[in-house]
Amino acid sequence: MKPSPEFSLIQQYFHALTTRREDVIVGIGDDCAVLNNPQDTYTAVSIDTLVQDIHFFADVDPYRLGIKALAVNLSDLAAMGAQPAWFTLALTLPEINDDWLKQFSAGLAYIAKNHQIQLVGGDTTRGPLTITIQVHGHVAKHNILQRNAAESADLICVTGCLGDAAAGLQFRLGQLETGLLTDTDIEYLLQRLEMPTPRNQIGQQLIGKAHAAIDVSDGLLADLNHILNASDKGAKLDVSALPFSAALKKLPTEMATQLALTGGDDYELCFTATVDNVARLKHQFSDMIHVIGEITEDEGMYYQNAHGEWQAFSAIKAGYDHFA
Amino acid sequence: MKPSPEFSLIQQYFHALTTRREDVIVGIGDDCAVLNNPQDTYTAVSIDTLVQDIHFFADVDPYRLGIKALAVNLSDLAAMGAQPAWFTLALTLPEINDDWLKQFSAGLAYIAKNHQIQLVGGDTTRGPLTITIQVHGHVAKHNILQRNAAESADLICVTGCLGDAAAGLQFRLGQLETGLLTDTDIEYLLQRLEMPTPRNQIGQQLIGKAHAAIDVSDGLLADLNHILNASDKGAKLDVSALPFSAALKKLPTEMATQLALTGGDDYELCFTATVDNVARLKHQFSDMIHVIGEITEDEGMYYQNAHGEWQAFSAIKAGYDHFA
Repeated sequence: MKPSPEFSLIQQYFHALTTRREDVIVGIGDDCAVLNNPQDTYTAVSIDTLVQDIHFFADVDPYRLGIKALAVNLSDLAAMGAQPAWFTLALTLPEINDDWLKQFSAGLAYIAKNHQIQLVGGDTTRGPLTITIQVHGHVAKHNILQRNAAESADLICVTGCLGDAAAGLQFRLGQLETGLLTDTDIEYLLQRLEMPTPRNQIGQQLIGKAHAAIDVSDGLLADLNHILNASDKGAKLDVSALPFSAALKKLPTEMATQLALTGGDDYELCFTATVDNVARLKHQFSDMIHVIGEITEDEGMYYQNAHGEWQAFSAIKAGYDHFA
Repeated sequence: MKPSPEFSLIQQYFHALTTRREDVIVGIGDDCAVLNNPQDTYTAVSIDTLVQDIHFFADVDPYRLGIKALAVNLSDLAAMGAQPAWFTLALTLPEINDDWLKQFSAGLAYIAKNHQIQLVGGDTTRGPLTITIQVHGHVAKHNILQRNAAESADLICVTGCLGDAAAGLQFRLGQLETGLLTDTDIEYLLQRLEMPTPRNQIGQQLIGKAHAAIDVSDGLLADLNHILNASDKGAKLDVSALPFSAALKKLPTEMATQLALTGGDDYELCFTATVDNVARLKHQFSDMIHVIGEITEDEGMYYQNAHGEWQAFSAIKAGYDHFA
């Protein structure tokens, strides 16, 4: 009936994650971590929890889970254009499973190294498997990407492909018709679900070029709706321009479209920018940037139906008010 | 099977906690909070998790739980001498219980207001009741209180009283002989367990006066041992000088002593300082500062037995390596 103020477990398994950056004045092992912020920057922070059986399956590969736990948080930094710096880990475990901890920490170390982000503190407690990570990043003052800055006639863009993670989830739930997919396709979809790729490099390059940005975690319609609500704008979407992976293209188009619009868990970026700036970004990141629509002054989200008429999305999955 | 990127629950119940400080550039409602650090300071951060049935009883008063969840984190800032600024809340709930959330958030709001600390972000997820809070504080550069700076001949001091929380826990477990205690005594002990008082005001005043500091969460011996190990020093304790509350004084001295030495959950500060600086601090905080021993060059922790001989503590409860 007492907290675990020390971090011996984390130190034992996560030591490789804890030593690198010069801006960490005091790392793990004291009451607080002490961190040196660069001048003329703000600190961007985000905290996310993954709970077993809610956010991941109990039998998920712990190496992949380590990657995902940090990836979903890095994705929030990407959506603000912030440069990753430090993270903390609050890990609740039902038991000390040496093999699980080794794999989980190896996955975490892999993605942390890729993003030059250092573990600076944490807490380990006993209980149902729950992983809470808080990330800290730096962003130059007056250069923040927010949700509320979309402007009329902005193009709406997304990075990467949409719907893969949702297809992977349907496969894991035994709900995906796999007749048209190869084993390689299925492994690809599972990887997109279990090891998403946060778009931090692109996110940082959006600063000064994009007006509004968000990461796609709840599903494109729900997340784009956040931008529209915060900016008091509307959108016309070109559903035929949604970017599908080779695997998703093998599914019926209607199913792939539904997955891409409402599936969630993609951790791609959705942003709005002027035509000129989109051209610059497409030049820089070539086939990673896809234009899928346009911001309108009038509120509401519309698409063109088979008859060429603009029609409101009738059932936007309101992921932004859910509790999961 | 998707995270909750939005914070509608938190916004609904915790709104009063979210608006105040001018250094919060972007608060709750975007992908990240964006925070403005004061110049010439470091950021001190600490994260702690409370899990139901491990760290608190399922039937604990949710108002008190709200206070405790932030108090244990504020206590870590106190031990570094850092000034509280911001916190994030990752709340995993089995269900949305309106009454519970109102009381929990009211307790949290009460202690947050007292310490001028603002909620800037969070995540709500469904699952077994788990509360993770990360606090952020500011500390002037080159003025950090750490564990590794104890010096020989420093006096060892603690704030407040020790052992009360442990006695409260024993009462809750039905293991406390209450014959000598009044209802008021028992309510006092429960309050010390369920609503500890972080010593942030004293902690900030230790800067420049104390050498080493830690908060007493695992029990005095375990936590003092952290200072000794980090500083390569030893200690002689005057067990008769341990500060007991009026309630604890009614228990057999041997039991009170054991509770004070090993009980934990007190969230008082333990620090070391020169004789002169202890005199200054005692002048400033009068009866809140108690001298309980002295730092020695030789390692090990000793006390004087009934025959006046110095004897090593035979069984220091090694809370610092536990997993709970």
